[in-house]
Amino acid sequence: MALRLAHEILTLQTAHPFTIARGSQSEYRVVWVRLRDGDGLEGWGEADPSWYYGETAETVTAALDRLAPALPDDPFALEEADAAMALVLRGNASARMAVSAALHDLAGKRLGVPLWRWWGLDPARAPRTSFTIGLDTPEIVRAKVREAAAYPILKIKVGTAGDEAILRAVRETTDRPLRVDANGGWTAKQAVARLPLLEEVGVELIEQPVAPDDLDGLAMVRRAARVPVIADESCRTAADIPRLAGVVDGISIKLAKCGSLREALRMVAVARAHHLAVMVGCMIETSLGITAAAHLTPLLDFVDLDGAALLARDPFRGATIEGGRLSLPTGPGLGVTAR
Amino acid sequence: MALRLAHEILTLQTAHPFTIARGSQSEYRVVWVRLRDGDGLEGWGEADPSWYYGETAETVTAALDRLAPALPDDPFALEEADAAMALVLRGNASARMAVSAALHDLAGKRLGVPLWRWWGLDPARAPRTSFTIGLDTPEIVRAKVREAAAYPILKIKVGTAGDEAILRAVRETTDRPLRVDANGGWTAKQAVARLPLLEEVGVELIEQPVAPDDLDGLAMVRRAARVPVIADESCRTAADIPRLAGVVDGISIKLAKCGSLREALRMVAVARAHHLAVMVGCMIETSLGITAAAHLTPLLDFVDLDGAALLARDPFRGATIEGGRLSLPTGPGLGVTAR
Repeated sequence: MALRLAHEILTLQTAHPFTIARGSQSEYRVVWVRLRDGDGLEGWGEADPSWYYGETAETVTAALDRLAPALPDDPFALEEADAAMALVLRGNASARMAVSAALHDLAGKRLGVPLWRWWGLDPARAPRTSFTIGLDTPEIVRAKVREAAAYPILKIKVGTAGDEAILRAVRETTDRPLRVDANGGWTAKQAVARLPLLEEVGVELIEQPVAPDDLDGLAMVRRAARVPVIADESCRTAADIPRLAGVVDGISIKLAKCGSLREALRMVAVARAHHLAVMVGCMIETSLGITAAAHLTPLLDFVDLDGAALLARDPFRGATIEGGRLSLPTGPGLGVTAR
Repeated sequence: MALRLAHEILTLQTAHPFTIARGSQSEYRVVWVRLRDGDGLEGWGEADPSWYYGETAETVTAALDRLAPALPDDPFALEEADAAMALVLRGNASARMAVSAALHDLAGKRLGVPLWRWWGLDPARAPRTSFTIGLDTPEIVRAKVREAAAYPILKIKVGTAGDEAILRAVRETTDRPLRVDANGGWTAKQAVARLPLLEEVGVELIEQPVAPDDLDGLAMVRRAARVPVIADESCRTAADIPRLAGVVDGISIKLAKCGSLREALRMVAVARAHHLAVMVGCMIETSLGITAAAHLTPLLDFVDLDGAALLARDPFRGATIEGGRLSLPTGPGLGVTAR
């Protein structure tokens, strides 16, 4: 019997307006996908559309209506489902990802094991997650850093003329490890010029310093930097990874970019074959989306899965964060429940 | 409770002496591995040692005795098991592979699903397998081709001065599709010189024309050939694949080379990211080893899993071949039973 797909747009509020090099926002619309089989068992997934990748909640729901008839009847036919969806509709990665997550959730529930166990992973291996401090005035950044006292690693959004003031404000407030994410906001020359400052305040990782297509710029920053340079916007799927080898030290997976949990696993394999570090990042999303990504973390080096922690109210319960440690659910499938 | 590992050397006879560019043999010693959990449930795997990769039945049993204490208690801790084995002992890929297969078999039995289903695959997608004709006199080759009437694709071992006589004898006997495997027996110049002959007899794929380390030679053959050139001995694990991109058209996985089912899946991912075709090959092995590899085939382009079909007597029942079509077992785990 065919799987039935239902979707619902959820409007999320962040506790604070969230600003990165590309803009500011405090309301986020995501899509909750439910797949129901003939026995009434449900698998859930979340689409976190990003205008940057050409998606909105409305393109997601339209894409889902197009994808639904292409789905196999059997939630275990995961390879076939990905292939069928790719044939029906290109792009729309977050919509396809929501279906992929829902299929894994449903099949995992039938197997009676959590996804990490299905994948042969040890949840104790999950690295600690960082917490992200968006762009803001030095005063507000200081307040946010104090508010984030429970998180042992901070990721600071940079990429504007205010970088120095922000980084000094953060370092005056805390001695925790710092990572920076420019979201492509620097030129290569600007990035290299900022390296002494980044070293002075003790930044341990630099994410996407320059524009996604500027591979020469990435390589230039990497040669000059003493800490790992990670590609995020430059790397959407596994096929992007070979050209990044020798250019950066690692890549960042985001489920909303790669379009399927199987593709995320393939990205880990390809990155490892090229001796690259692997990070997972997220969008502003609920614990449903975060938990799907959290199941991958035992395979990874760096984790930034604070998306649900930035919310004023999270409609789901799944992976939890305690002192930066991710605790993966023990329930079957994704292990996520409604709050 | 710890998993208990038992091993037993099995001596296999081929129906005919089997000869490739490196030598001839009619007796093969493989190792049957059984992992038993606290409930008496057993997972099985097979090690198919090759002197070419530095293994014998005796090095396998010695390696297994060293690996066994490093195994996790939980057969689902697959990533941990691979990492622990790699720490205890490098190399010895076929020994590690047998343990990997046994862990997957055991965990699959606990889940109650066949491995292909656990992996989200559709068994109907498995390509047809070729049947291998070893090096021999043209008369015997003719007889073998007639004997192999049930197989729709033939893989002809080449790599000696007798290539032309053999290929003409084969083509006079059958109009089936032909593939050739030189097992590195040609120089690049010899390989290129043979291309007109290969084209004339209608060879559709060339496996490992030149020595494993001769990447320039592989690239030279590939540029000159109109059909895919596949690397076998040049490619053991996923980390070998990036340097083969642009050099060959595809890679061949063998479980006895790559050391773990998880590594085999990673090899598929890495090859795909480099737009390479993927084949799976085998050693002379029983249906236990063949079936472990057969579960991968829905992901692959070319399949050469005739190892058990070459045996005088196969001690196991698993994946079967009918008119070249692989039929994957529906039983849980590997789905293999003793005959």
